[in-house]
Amino acid sequence: MSSPAKLAVCLVSGGMDSAVALAEARAQGFECHALSFDYGQRHKVELDAAARVALALGAKEQRVVRVDLSALGGSALTDSIEVPKDRVEAEIGRGVPATYVPARNTVFLGVALGWAEVLGAREIFVGINALDYSGYPDCRPEFLRAFEELAQLATAAGTEEHARFRVQAPLMQMTKAAIVKRGLELGVDFSLTHSCYDPLVRGGEVRACGRCDACQLRKKGFSEARVQDPTRYV
Amino acid sequence: MSSPAKLAVCLVSGGMDSAVALAEARAQGFECHALSFDYGQRHKVELDAAARVALALGAKEQRVVRVDLSALGGSALTDSIEVPKDRVEAEIGRGVPATYVPARNTVFLGVALGWAEVLGAREIFVGINALDYSGYPDCRPEFLRAFEELAQLATAAGTEEHARFRVQAPLMQMTKAAIVKRGLELGVDFSLTHSCYDPLVRGGEVRACGRCDACQLRKKGFSEARVQDPTRYV
Repeated sequence: MSSPAKLAVCLVSGGMDSAVALAEARAQGFECHALSFDYGQRHKVELDAAARVALALGAKEQRVVRVDLSALGGSALTDSIEVPKDRVEAEIGRGVPATYVPARNTVFLGVALGWAEVLGAREIFVGINALDYSGYPDCRPEFLRAFEELAQLATAAGTEEHARFRVQAPLMQMTKAAIVKRGLELGVDFSLTHSCYDPLVRGGEVRACGRCDACQLRKKGFSEARVQDPTRYV
Repeated sequence: MSSPAKLAVCLVSGGMDSAVALAEARAQGFECHALSFDYGQRHKVELDAAARVALALGAKEQRVVRVDLSALGGSALTDSIEVPKDRVEAEIGRGVPATYVPARNTVFLGVALGWAEVLGAREIFVGINALDYSGYPDCRPEFLRAFEELAQLATAAGTEEHARFRVQAPLMQMTKAAIVKRGLELGVDFSLTHSCYDPLVRGGEVRACGRCDACQLRKKGFSEARVQDPTRYV
């Protein structure tokens, strides 16, 4: 008799980190339920990438939940604020940049928790990374531990069954180069992923700007891993 | 010279509790930014009530944020599950009922936190009540304290300025009867509020069912406060 499937909710943004996190969850034997968000990001290119990634990496299903964070303003990713370009390496990861979306990960993890409870899953996988990250406060290990504490108190399952909810962030302490290498080991096709905050979309063709923080971190990762970046830049 | 306005984000659902919480925030001198959610609830009647309440109680503005929790299923409030009726008093508040929406308050407070950060507000007012409540785990004081801890770690303001975010739940320890009395003291017009989970809407007319948990708790509150309930029941 086979044991019952271990279920996980996996946040999949379309970027390379969450793709590798999903691949880790699959490698650990989880049945993965991919969750993506339409949160008013300026480009839907991310959501197209998320759907491709979820399918390619064998997620059981993918859901896109609309959360209209753009209604609150305050971010270059959802607002008319300009995406910063050509920041030198020392600037990236220092201070909170204009691309920070207030409380985004709190809201996304909250929705993931709700879906986990409905599915009977106790694990949530995220591609969050604290090392080569972009200076977002809600990308730190202490944030995730605080969220796990909250999850116990927020849910019927935590309260009645004393079930432990866990947020797994397998990339937390990895460099972008290590993420590239691990992704290749796990069979991630990085050409399906999209990182750029400010892509040029013409017809069906997508070109990454190559200059925003996300592009720079990505390029650096591939370069340091000595792997060809399949991204098409402008 | 007048001191700068104290800002608060106030969750306003259209129900009586959040109306009284908003009135408390106004009485404490806060400039109130009302936040309501379109989360796929079966009836938009609640949102109409929320807009009326925010206007009547002098909120500076009201925003409705769409968060599509119905995409996750699992609740009688967003799904095709039947709303429980005629539960006796001993049943209400024991166990988690079908009207529980998984992780709803986590998501709502997350969005409120994001907006608070954008506005520069540090206070969030909610109508949550742990005494005459309906058995929801995310309506307990320990849940709110855990959320405040998370808020410090989740935000740029908490991290960089060491600002304390506070979730105020002024009704937490009040009975429904006490809430009715306090609301009247503060000038809340309860005829603007809507409580029913399963109203009958015909033309422009709304009638409360009188039998769901929300209706029963409301009726009990008005009855114990010896105040006429302005609700029109079927």
